[in-house]
Order: sequence, then structure tokens, then C-alpha cells
Amino acid sequence: MTSGRACGPNYMSKVISHLTISLDGFVAGPNQSLENPLGEGAMRLHEWLFATSEWQDAHGGSGGSGDSIDSEAAASMQRGVGAVVMGRNMFAAGRGDWDLSWRGWWGENPPFHAPVFVLTHYPREPLAMEGGTTFYFVTDGVDDALSRARAAAGDASVHVAGGASTVRQYLRAGLLDELHLHVSPLLLHDGERLFEDLGDCRFEVMSAAAGGPLAAHVSLRVVR
Amino acid sequence: MTSGRACGPNYMSKVISHLTISLDGFVAGPNQSLENPLGEGAMRLHEWLFATSEWQDAHGGSGGSGDSIDSEAAASMQRGVGAVVMGRNMFAAGRGDWDLSWRGWWGENPPFHAPVFVLTHYPREPLAMEGGTTFYFVTDGVDDALSRARAAAGDASVHVAGGASTVRQYLRAGLLDELHLHVSPLLLHDGERLFEDLGDCRFEVMSAAAGGPLAAHVSLRVVR
Repeated sequence: MTSGRACGPNYMSKVISHLTISLDGFVAGPNQSLENPLGEGAMRLHEWLFATSEWQDAHGGSGGSGDSIDSEAAASMQRGVGAVVMGRNMFAAGRGDWDLSWRGWWGENPPFHAPVFVLTHYPREPLAMEGGTTFYFVTDGVDDALSRARAAAGDASVHVAGGASTVRQYLRAGLLDELHLHVSPLLLHDGERLFEDLGDCRFEVMSAAAGGPLAAHVSLRVVR
Repeated sequence: MTSGRACGPNYMSKVISHLTISLDGFVAGPNQSLENPLGEGAMRLHEWLFATSEWQDAHGGSGGSGDSIDSEAAASMQRGVGAVVMGRNMFAAGRGDWDLSWRGWWGENPPFHAPVFVLTHYPREPLAMEGGTTFYFVTDGVDDALSRARAAAGDASVHVAGGASTVRQYLRAGLLDELHLHVSPLLLHDGERLFEDLGDCRFEVMSAAAGGPLAAHVSLRVVR
């Protein structure tokens, strides 16, 4: 294991997060809505990803570039991941009581192919989708969601998929092992920042690479 | 030439900037002062640089690591540079009329070894230092400073060395060709941001690399 955890259970799996971030530090634009789930202007952040064959294959598209540093970065987002944790904000636009007709943004065969633990204050029965994805709705907080994700993942890793506030919660709690940033070289000017209200979180650079104009991939280890 | 400039004189030299930036986007800490010219906490940003033999050699120290990606990045800050432009804030802590006893932060043999054009509102005679550095004080603005630096640099590049507000002025004016970021994986929480008030500046990733835990080096081309 490569975790820097000094004590506690000797977890085999890592807890990782992949986030695409603008040059000026935003992971989502302003005014997130049902029509604009990433916020205004933020879809452009992910152009590097949309251009890869990995993403196109996983989302029912075709074409895209494979065998590049960008496609390797896209593939690394899924590789070795046995369970996913996400905030409610990543699963749905609404708040409050569930609209049970809402089954996520991703259609009937979501690209996770693993158990997904959705943090929420509103209980809901698990939602089994096609392709191995089941959404579980967790009302007991980030620790409980991670415990359940670890148990489901076994020796595989847990991906804290987002959004930014969820990743920040795991960083603040000292529960994240690796943060993989995909830096899109554009300015959003406004929106949701990743790196704020994080206290004294410390990081080490693990690697950095770029294969095209659309992204620089920077991997960080969280130091405890 | 690799500039994306679509029209205008076919300059041989590039206008580049190297800046070390925190993970949360700051290039200087809060409360810059004579005692703390980079602002509180910001000296740590440059640990990657201090650890290289290039920096130690250039600043009269000894030791440091050579033959690494960090040392290559440090070397690239000087290579092919024929003239330097900087804001007054980088040359001196004071404001207003010059204290003529102030000869910069770098001692009698500054590490530039080239003409340095200092942007200021207060005229001052040129200041010839040892080792080939002469400070020229330019009161006619960023365009004039760059013209003079280009003339001095000939076929070599012009380095807009800082601070952040000076680099932002050149970015906004469409005069910068390449921005080389050295990302230090720490959080400053407060201070001077590079990426704000830049309008619709657009960038492309040129390269990204890391050789150790202290920095990720990300080079950007400014798109016009």
C-alpha cells in the first residue's frame, strides 16, 4: 500500500479522487442547475476527457483518441476502483425529499460498474442499475459511507468522485490518500473552488504529465 | 518562433514568465514587507528551487540536487533569456520616491546577468551591478519596458519575472507568449492570486513534468 497513514487499520485499498480543475482553481462553474449540472461554462473543463476513446466507449459514443497521456489519465480514473462515493449534488440537482423518478445523470447503464454510495440526508432504497452499478443512499455521514465503500471494494480502491465539497470533506477528515488533478488550461473566473477551507492539509507531488493542449495531469499524495 | 501571434512584427524572441504558484493559486502570501518580501508563508513555495544545484550555484550557495526534473526547470528559467522585466514591487519593498541606497534584494551580483527593466512611476538613473546585470528604471509603462527589453535581448527571450500583477498586465495586454508554472503542493490560503482579472486569456498546455515531491512543472502557451 502507498498510503501515508501512520496508524489505524492497515487498509489494502486506497481512497482516491480524480477531479478536473480550471487553471484558476474551479471544479464547477457558477449557478449549477438541472440544465447545467456542472455550472456555467464548466463543461469545457472536460474537453480533454471527451476527446479520449476511453470516455467515448464508456458513455456509448465512438471515436476519440486512445493510446495517449490523456487517454491513460481517463483510464486511470476507473482502474482498480471497487466502489465509489459521491455527494448528493453529483447524483441529482434537487434538494430535500427524493423525486424517486430521478435515477442519476447517466442513464440506465451508468459508467461506474460498481457500488456507488451517495451521501444524503434523505433515506432512499438502493437503486440497482444495469452494468453492475447500484446506488446506495447513505444518511450517516462521510465516515459511514467510506466504511461501506471500503467493505464493498475489498482490495480495490475507493473513488471519491465529487463534487468538490464532498472531496473537501474527505480531505479535512484525513481520509483521502491520493488526489489526481486534471488541470484544464482555461479560466472559469467564478464557481466552486476545490482548495479552500482545507485547514492544514499537506500534499506531495507524485507525478505530472501532459500529452496534448487540453490538460496537464498532476497527481498528489496526501501527507498525514 | 513558437509564438501564436497572428500579426505584427515577426519577433524572434519569446516573452516568457516563470512563476512558482501554490496549489490554491497564490504566487505571494499576505502582508508583503521588507522583512517578508514574498509575503507570509510564501518562502516555502520555493523549496523546490532552493533544493536545486542551479539555484545554489547562482546564489553563492553550494550543494543542491542537479540532473533532475526540478534542476532542469530551474535551469530553464535562465536559459536563452537576454533581458528581464519586473515590477517595482519585485525590485524593492518601498513605494514613492526612491531610496537610492536600495540596490535590490540580490546583493552586488544579482542572478540575472542581463539588463533588467524595472517598471516604476519614479525616474531613477540606471544602476550597473556586477556580473552583467544593469537595472533600468522605466516610467513609460509595460509596452515601453517590453520594447526596450526586446531591443536589449536581440534574438534571446525576454523574461517577465514578476510579480504577479506585472505578469497579469502583460497577459492582459496580449504580450506574453509562454507561462511556465512551478506548482508547489502546499496551501497558502491567502495572498496574491495569479489567475484573476485576466479577462478572456486563453492557454494551451505545452508540457507537464515532475521529478520529486516538491513541485509539478506545467508550461502553457498563451493563445491569441
